[in-house]
Amino acid sequence: MKDYIRIHPWEIREEGWNPQLNRVSESLFSIGNGRMGQRGNAEEDFSGDTLPGSYIGGVYYPDKTRVGWWKNGYPEYFAKVLNALRWQAISLKVNGFRIDLASEHCRTKVFRRSLNMQEGWLGRMWEFNLPDGTALRIESKRCCHMEHKDLGVLQYRISSDRKIRVEADIYLDADVRNQDANYDEVFWEAHESGISSGHMPWLRHQTRKTGFRVLGAQRCRAAIQGRSQSLTFHHQPLRAGALLDCELEAGLVLDIEKFAAVLSDLHHAPDAFVSAAEKLLNSAVEQGAEALFESQAAAWARIWQEADMEIEGDDAAQQGIRFNIFQLFQTYTGDDARLNIGPKGFTGEKYGGSTYWDTEAYCLPFYLGCADPSVSRNLLLYRYKQLDKAIENAQKLGIGKGAALYPMVTMNGEECHNEWEITFEEIHRNGAIAYGIYDYVRYTGDEAYVPAYGLEVLIAIARYWAQRVSWSKPRGQWVMLGVTGPNEFENNVNNNWYTNYLAAWCLRYAAEQLELVKHKYPQDWQRIAAKVGWNDSETARWADIASNMYYPTDPESGLFLQQDGFMDKELIPVSELSPAERPIVEHWSWDRILRSCYIKQADVLQGFYFFEDDFDRETLRRHYHFYEPLTVHESSLSPCVHSILAVAAGLPDKAYEFYLRTARLDLNDINNDTRDGCHITSMAGTWMTIAKGFAGMRVRGQHLHFEPALPAAWQRLAFQLRFRGNVLRIALRRGAHELHNLEGGDITVFVSGNKVQVPAGSKVQLA
Amino acid sequence: MKDYIRIHPWEIREEGWNPQLNRVSESLFSIGNGRMGQRGNAEEDFSGDTLPGSYIGGVYYPDKTRVGWWKNGYPEYFAKVLNALRWQAISLKVNGFRIDLASEHCRTKVFRRSLNMQEGWLGRMWEFNLPDGTALRIESKRCCHMEHKDLGVLQYRISSDRKIRVEADIYLDADVRNQDANYDEVFWEAHESGISSGHMPWLRHQTRKTGFRVLGAQRCRAAIQGRSQSLTFHHQPLRAGALLDCELEAGLVLDIEKFAAVLSDLHHAPDAFVSAAEKLLNSAVEQGAEALFESQAAAWARIWQEADMEIEGDDAAQQGIRFNIFQLFQTYTGDDARLNIGPKGFTGEKYGGSTYWDTEAYCLPFYLGCADPSVSRNLLLYRYKQLDKAIENAQKLGIGKGAALYPMVTMNGEECHNEWEITFEEIHRNGAIAYGIYDYVRYTGDEAYVPAYGLEVLIAIARYWAQRVSWSKPRGQWVMLGVTGPNEFENNVNNNWYTNYLAAWCLRYAAEQLELVKHKYPQDWQRIAAKVGWNDSETARWADIASNMYYPTDPESGLFLQQDGFMDKELIPVSELSPAERPIVEHWSWDRILRSCYIKQADVLQGFYFFEDDFDRETLRRHYHFYEPLTVHESSLSPCVHSILAVAAGLPDKAYEFYLRTARLDLNDINNDTRDGCHITSMAGTWMTIAKGFAGMRVRGQHLHFEPALPAAWQRLAFQLRFRGNVLRIALRRGAHELHNLEGGDITVFVSGNKVQVPAGSKVQLA
Repeated sequence: MKDYIRIHPWEIREEGWNPQLNRVSESLFSIGNGRMGQRGNAEEDFSGDTLPGSYIGGVYYPDKTRVGWWKNGYPEYFAKVLNALRWQAISLKVNGFRIDLASEHCRTKVFRRSLNMQEGWLGRMWEFNLPDGTALRIESKRCCHMEHKDLGVLQYRISSDRKIRVEADIYLDADVRNQDANYDEVFWEAHESGISSGHMPWLRHQTRKTGFRVLGAQRCRAAIQGRSQSLTFHHQPLRAGALLDCELEAGLVLDIEKFAAVLSDLHHAPDAFVSAAEKLLNSAVEQGAEALFESQAAAWARIWQEADMEIEGDDAAQQGIRFNIFQLFQTYTGDDARLNIGPKGFTGEKYGGSTYWDTEAYCLPFYLGCADPSVSRNLLLYRYKQLDKAIENAQKLGIGKGAALYPMVTMNGEECHNEWEITFEEIHRNGAIAYGIYDYVRYTGDEAYVPAYGLEVLIAIARYWAQRVSWSKPRGQWVMLGVTGPNEFENNVNNNWYTNYLAAWCLRYAAEQLELVKHKYPQDWQRIAAKVGWNDSETARWADIASNMYYPTDPESGLFLQQDGFMDKELIPVSELSPAERPIVEHWSWDRILRSCYIKQADVLQGFYFFEDDFDRETLRRHYHFYEPLTVHESSLSPCVHSILAVAAGLPDKAYEFYLRTARLDLNDINNDTRDGCHITSMAGTWMTIAKGFAGMRVRGQHLHFEPALPAAWQRLAFQLRFRGNVLRIALRRGAHELHNLEGGDITVFVSGNKVQVPAGSKVQLA
Repeated sequence: MKDYIRIHPWEIREEGWNPQLNRVSESLFSIGNGRMGQRGNAEEDFSGDTLPGSYIGGVYYPDKTRVGWWKNGYPEYFAKVLNALRWQAISLKVNGFRIDLASEHCRTKVFRRSLNMQEGWLGRMWEFNLPDGTALRIESKRCCHMEHKDLGVLQYRISSDRKIRVEADIYLDADVRNQDANYDEVFWEAHESGISSGHMPWLRHQTRKTGFRVLGAQRCRAAIQGRSQSLTFHHQPLRAGALLDCELEAGLVLDIEKFAAVLSDLHHAPDAFVSAAEKLLNSAVEQGAEALFESQAAAWARIWQEADMEIEGDDAAQQGIRFNIFQLFQTYTGDDARLNIGPKGFTGEKYGGSTYWDTEAYCLPFYLGCADPSVSRNLLLYRYKQLDKAIENAQKLGIGKGAALYPMVTMNGEECHNEWEITFEEIHRNGAIAYGIYDYVRYTGDEAYVPAYGLEVLIAIARYWAQRVSWSKPRGQWVMLGVTGPNEFENNVNNNWYTNYLAAWCLRYAAEQLELVKHKYPQDWQRIAAKVGWNDSETARWADIASNMYYPTDPESGLFLQQDGFMDKELIPVSELSPAERPIVEHWSWDRILRSCYIKQADVLQGFYFFEDDFDRETLRRHYHFYEPLTVHESSLSPCVHSILAVAAGLPDKAYEFYLRTARLDLNDINNDTRDGCHITSMAGTWMTIAKGFAGMRVRGQHLHFEPALPAAWQRLAFQLRFRGNVLRIALRRGAHELHNLEGGDITVFVSGNKVQVPAGSKVQLA
């Protein structure tokens, strides 16, 4: 828990230089535009503790798997989005002193980093003295441009209280490594470098093994009082830039503007790399940094228009949700179905930038609510395109006949994870992929997605479950042995209730969608049936399994049990654990965690979250009261689901507590791990906490429902939602709500159970 | 399954050069003397497929742990007995051609490797042509000397059909690496090298990190028809030797004798390394190779006198058991309590040469039966000396108060293994340590071991179990959650019957021994009670747990279940598996194995083996018939226990089948893994199969019992046993047994239930 970020509705600000917090700040001050991003690393040379990180979406390296003891079925590699070109680099000497925030001879007086979330840029102000008494001030401002996705812009200003000599190398640096590399390999190799048109240094390099080709190029200018300073250009295999050597009079400002192009062969033909960069950078130079920051702000204004959530009366909560939304759109903008959302986005190396079930369970509802449906559809298509690999993956695990097991962690559809209890057994992820399709279709109404793409995925997933279950003779029911549920503090358990429930649901949903396509889209059905080699007997087996699935239940209380044998554990509430032993994952050995009753994140309750309408409120309440006290919430994905359920269970204070824990998880470094990067996917959970929790938004049938229950401190909550053809603005106050139908035709919604008609274009006030 | 080793009662022989089998043969033709050993690698340069291996007992390297995902409690390193000085090296050129078995220009005509088990040496005969038409014959013979434990002896003879030029470097090679190195590190560093007394090249070097110091030194002579050939000596940091350059007339023999000293600081002061080597090698040179091979044969004759098992009528069985006994004594001779028995002995790198529970469960009974009791006592003392580390190990896993958890894999008492399901959960090993004490005391009658050493270990182990269990409210019994039993094809199960049973037994046995020491050895008790901080309430808790332990049982059949939920599995006998899918560990993914019913090695049946007298024969039979058909025997430790139980269950054919599978496991490379080394610890199981299986030997109360049941083909089985003060020779024939009391006073034994008195020194015939 840290508390050094100033509360402000639109800004993230750190005052003072905190070297011991630098990695945390670097994570928080990350910037990105969905295509590329970077941590808040310094521009200058930096000798202190840092995690350097610049990333290009979709450009990864297959890092050879490292395990202690190989098990059959482990993947050969872990695909990692790798640390890439550091485009913001400026190596600086003043009066012969190397400028380095961490160096002793830079005596910091004032230091401020700030993230302007409204306008989408990272700023820094630094005042310090050199050993010769010189007082310096450096101001910088940079962004990954939201409109020009391959463009980075940096404004860098130096001034002093006396005349100084400034030597600078304003350069591109591709000589970078990952701190997370299994065998300390270098991931990049140089291709070629050069100076184009006499002023554009560039570097061509590529990833080893995967051969992704990248070009970095830059243009820059340096001026004092509008007077251009001359630059000389240099290039080496992995470094190229412009050298500046000038004198700066006291009180004047040396104004450097740097424009960097980062092109990859995902978006550009390598043959045309240099000319594309030239075009982009010429235009950038022409516009100038100021104008580019303006268009950046305009692009963000459009995003905020659609996605902002306004909270009045609670600035900490306001800052939290904005930071979360800001980071989400920095990570993923949805214009490229090859990309997905890594748990750390562009803010760190952990989890390798790969895709997890977080996407379907957490991120999808966010993008459904506040982005064009094409964004969510791209998330779904990502999985559709990887169906073949998921079928191969199931085959590797001995489950054939067109069954698919989507990987736990993936970049290109191949499994990357290598712990057997996760890789092979945390199979509920497969259900989340199916649930994502369900969620998308019911939210957008885009039924046509099912015959076009969805059904193939649903059939393959259903086929997996149909083979993965086994028949228990003594129980006379279908069981699912050897799984790991969402609560990863249990491994290789039998009959995880959530997994069994989800599997049965998948079987029923796939059968139902299959029937729908068969009758409503017969041509599609013909194509699909041929493609998947359909056999009509399959649905009978699916129905049998779905209706004869075994669910572990406590005979005494009637509670659904997380898994077989759960009641054999000693059930001691988390509140009785010594704080010195928290988080248990850092203090207890793994076996002790496994045999304890402690739950890492919602497991049975994840089922209640997904399938809320299958259970009455009383049943929900009883399960909440049984499981939540045993839950340590040591996954960032835990508080948000518990917050939503706490609202439903009538526990508003708990819900608010969980809200802050998810909304300010990184801002307050609550789990003491923000240094590794921000928890991007759980940030979508924060949005859900507000939309589904405090606003009580649900889709039932064809309609949106709201059941507002604002936290005590909140005077007003307002946000916008896309729902099918409509765009709806919802403003909630205690007992005085307003619905504004901004786009689309008339719409009927339900608020606290009451039917409300909101005609096209009009506002409705509710008492 | 391979079948290229000729059946012979005393010899292991390979005829012909089989490059594709070379690694297997290298394992089979390993030699050793308990202190050092080596694989059957060629003397000459070798460019083919090989696993070079020379090892020094107790000299290890802490190889930094490699895991995919770190879990709290994992050890920092895996201690590995490392590949060491290659003392047999001879680099040879004839007529300018480099001699190399794998080289194309050595056209092999005759090739033979043979292990003379009776006399303890490895021989090789090789006839081949060079491209120039020269026909060469090389004969070599070498041993690790059984009397002079630091001495290696090599006799090497070259002859040809024409006059040849021979250039040889007869050298010591410390520039060696492990193939199994987690980060490809070099484990050795050079210290110093030199030539002593003008004719003894030597190398001092040491292991990195652990700093074990080793000296290699050699003396050699080369002669043609008694005419000494001149040698020149050389030394470099990791290589030193003698160069020979001579002409050899057709039909004459160049006779090279090489004596190598391998000294480690485990046995010699490094300051005196060179003088100790000089003394050893001068004496060796003086005696000459012939005489040393004679004393080697004499030392082996003494071992065979005591440990041989003679089988008449079944040479395959005879060869198998002798090979097993031979390898065991090559690995461990019991004169050093710092050493133990790695699963591969000195025959390979796998398992790092570390100690497993194999020692207590398999090797101890062997050494009890056919070696001086000091040998077994040293095996027990090894664990006693590591008690403090075992206590630390338990603390690391959150179990304190003087409780000990012995490591799964260790060199110096610290845990080396790093798979959570084994390291943290395969805790039944702790019970085997206690069972070893019980086994030793009842076999040797050395009750005094308990107050002197044993009780401290028993208390610490009992304390572990007393904390490791937990109370199940619904069952009203003690349960043991999250364990891995001997069947490692199940992980993290609840209530493994074997573990629960063994834990309860440990608690009772520790309490019983504690009472005995308290009353019979009160002074020892005072010392122990003070040392362990004894609290009298502990035994009450132990008794409560032991008597209220939960044992999973099938309500329908009354069978003990391997673990909770076992009957939920689909129970399809192994016989119905496709041979193409065997061994399943190579063909199935780990999750599929885990959720299957297939058993890697005896689990419930291991309990029946340990605690046979707790159950009647009918109960044993029923469990055997339930579990054996589900057992894939993919551990080398599986067939032996099943063989013994099959005899007890009245299934002699099955018992014989399992016997051959264990006795000839490596000779026939049954598990297709002998290339990595021989299965040394399971070789002790082969001995048990004969002693406890076919001879039906048991200790009950104060007496030895026999229940002979010879396989149909065996006309006679004879072996010797130490039992307490006696040495007994047992010769069994179908219905005509003979007992010979070779040493000690009168003894009473039971044969097939009949009491037999065998007076001191006399023979008794039984009809």
